Amino acid sequence: MKKYGFGVDIGGTTCKIGLFHTTGEIVEKWEIPTNTQEQGKNILTDIAASLNQKLSQNSINREEIEGIGIGLPGPVRADGVVPVCVNLGWKEINVSQEMQKLMEGIRTEAGNDANVAALGEMWQGGGKGCKNVVMVTLGTGVGGGIIIDEKIVSGSNGAGGEIGHITVNPHEAISCNCGRKGCLEQYASATGITRLANEYLAKEHQKSLLDEGEVSAKSVFDAYKQKDAAAEEIVEKFARILGNALSNIACVADPEVFVIGGGVSKAGKPLLDAVEKYYRKAAFSSCKDTRFALASLGNDAGIYGCVKLILE
Amino acid sequence: MKKYGFGVDIGGTTCKIGLFHTTGEIVEKWEIPTNTQEQGKNILTDIAASLNQKLSQNSINREEIEGIGIGLPGPVRADGVVPVCVNLGWKEINVSQEMQKLMEGIRTEAGNDANVAALGEMWQGGGKGCKNVVMVTLGTGVGGGIIIDEKIVSGSNGAGGEIGHITVNPHEAISCNCGRKGCLEQYASATGITRLANEYLAKEHQKSLLDEGEVSAKSVFDAYKQKDAAAEEIVEKFARILGNALSNIACVADPEVFVIGGGVSKAGKPLLDAVEKYYRKAAFSSCKDTRFALASLGNDAGIYGCVKLILE
Repeated sequence: MKKYGFGVDIGGTTCKIGLFHTTGEIVEKWEIPTNTQEQGKNILTDIAASLNQKLSQNSINREEIEGIGIGLPGPVRADGVVPVCVNLGWKEINVSQEMQKLMEGIRTEAGNDANVAALGEMWQGGGKGCKNVVMVTLGTGVGGGIIIDEKIVSGSNGAGGEIGHITVNPHEAISCNCGRKGCLEQYASATGITRLANEYLAKEHQKSLLDEGEVSAKSVFDAYKQKDAAAEEIVEKFARILGNALSNIACVADPEVFVIGGGVSKAGKPLLDAVEKYYRKAAFSSCKDTRFALASLGNDAGIYGCVKLILE
Repeated sequence: MKKYGFGVDIGGTTCKIGLFHTTGEIVEKWEIPTNTQEQGKNILTDIAASLNQKLSQNSINREEIEGIGIGLPGPVRADGVVPVCVNLGWKEINVSQEMQKLMEGIRTEAGNDANVAALGEMWQGGGKGCKNVVMVTLGTGVGGGIIIDEKIVSGSNGAGGEIGHITVNPHEAISCNCGRKGCLEQYASATGITRLANEYLAKEHQKSLLDEGEVSAKSVFDAYKQKDAAAEEIVEKFARILGNALSNIACVADPEVFVIGGGVSKAGKPLLDAVEKYYRKAAFSSCKDTRFALASLGNDAGIYGCVKLILE
């Protein structure tokens, strides 16, 4: 009986690994270092060794394993090929095929890490119970993942859910990391919020809690919760830009729920409420009531999603 | 052997019906009037009678029919229920279930007409050979259909692919039919292009072919093809707005191809080239090379897509 699955979220420095029941409960999780030397040629063998060790430690037969899901920081084509993965040192490699060979035939599926995290949140996190989810990850940048009918929309060029690079301000003067100007990421990421704050504080303004110490997305939301006027202006601007962008995404993908995650989302319900307010104002009538939820799996979203990848 | 399928595209005045080989060739197509009287209670029985008649005329056995696909002008929920369809007079009805009953068990699937047309263009039209297609219909309004992995993205509220209501200009003063302001439809539909033209011509401008006679999307593109300076300005504005909007859609759905259809698309390659130019300028690097194609099935896209609905 196939009752277990492995989720492997490969990052540039560590691989997070989880052993799961196929029903969604985590049995055990651990980490191993990611060895990126020699074009990362040992990464998959290291993982295979760790998985085999875990099987014998827990006296689990290979026949009890439904499969292995792998998330990685780069695009994965529909045929399983990773054309390039800079952070791991990989060039063109069929990850699922290689892993399956190393694990003597245990079925393996691979996906992009942001997309896999979205799938995890759909399965056991903020989007639990839904089949159509748009996940928005507010971190250093703005990432995303689109899940339609429980499947990742990876896109023809691996750019499905690259919502951080939706143009929201054609008049922006400063360049985004992607080389274009006015991307959502420039306003709604931790870096973006800090920039909005510094711009605001550079102009004449009322005395603010933000005048002292270093400004960050966290300090802005902390001050916002204390009803600081400057922080309110900054958060309203952030929320308007993000809420408007999500209302446009709803005209394409029309999800049941927007799940908001990433470091910035630790600001919690006040952040969600602000974004929701602008979303509802801007949304097309049929999508006005789309739910908003906070991501709930934190850094484990990836390993959850990896397991869900192999359950179809 | 199941070698035939029916496609039924129900409109407010006529139903277009097609008998197809399941390989995609049309055997015969015809129309019957749509009887919307008495809350449209005879629409499905009229269609069933017409299908049965066609079966006996062609000496086709019911066992040879793979199924019946139905397109209709309203939202269709994933469970097959149409909550309401104003143009047909329908209230809450499970169209596929009803039709299946009337046709003694022949499998039936239903979908929204714009989405089904997109599926048809993917299957046998401008998007042939692709699995991920965004169809843009430039008619009186701007419609759309998103196809991911050969399946329609209908959305949780039936608003999947409602790309005409993406907000492209938050500063617009005039209202869209949907009640909001600055929708793509207000600039990229036939009505929108006419409005852009009239606004342009109301200001001081060089002598133009558009100064005489009534202005329409067609007259604008006709003048554009003759290198009329005013028409060039108008078309460039239309193309920039549409191209930019499509570049944002690519950051969500990342299709292999954008298929442009609807009455306005009769302007052909010059229209496609103009939109493509602005798309490539605005697009996120991974999606810069996405293909553009003209829709090729015209009003038959719906019946093609209906048949594809039942082939899975």
